[in-house]
Amino acid sequence: MKAKIHITLKTGVLDPQGKAIEGALTGLGFAGVENVRQGKFIELEITESDPDKARTQIEEMCKKLLANPVMENYEIEVIG
Amino acid sequence: MKAKIHITLKTGVLDPQGKAIEGALTGLGFAGVENVRQGKFIELEITESDPDKARTQIEEMCKKLLANPVMENYEIEVIG
Repeated sequence: MKAKIHITLKTGVLDPQGKAIEGALTGLGFAGVENVRQGKFIELEITESDPDKARTQIEEMCKKLLANPVMENYEIEVIG
Repeated sequence: MKAKIHITLKTGVLDPQGKAIEGALTGLGFAGVENVRQGKFIELEITESDPDKARTQIEEMCKKLLANPVMENYEIEVIG
């Protein structure tokens, strides 16, 4: 099955990359852009065919490698 | 209004970052993980209150700064 994972910085954690994008957009003349936050978006395929088991495995992957649970939130979407 | 932007590599474009994640997951003992692709996920707020105008502006931002249209696709979701 396929899965989509969103990894975003927790609220309150400073996002220098987002700030840089915001500054660059303003510099290019885009006015009124605020609170830019950059996260990661990971797509993968997993041979496990049970959606619950797949989700559990992917949660484990997020905790061990993909996300930093201290600073980041992750959201997993398993697609049939 | 708020907007969410997904920036992903076009199909067929090699994704070394995705390959590295795949290798690391396999190394950690996660079997059966395939086709890992990493993209970017950007959230922002824009003062423009018309959804269509906001989308047009964000498309312009994607073309000029956020995405590389040669190698990347982008998907914009404007939230009321």
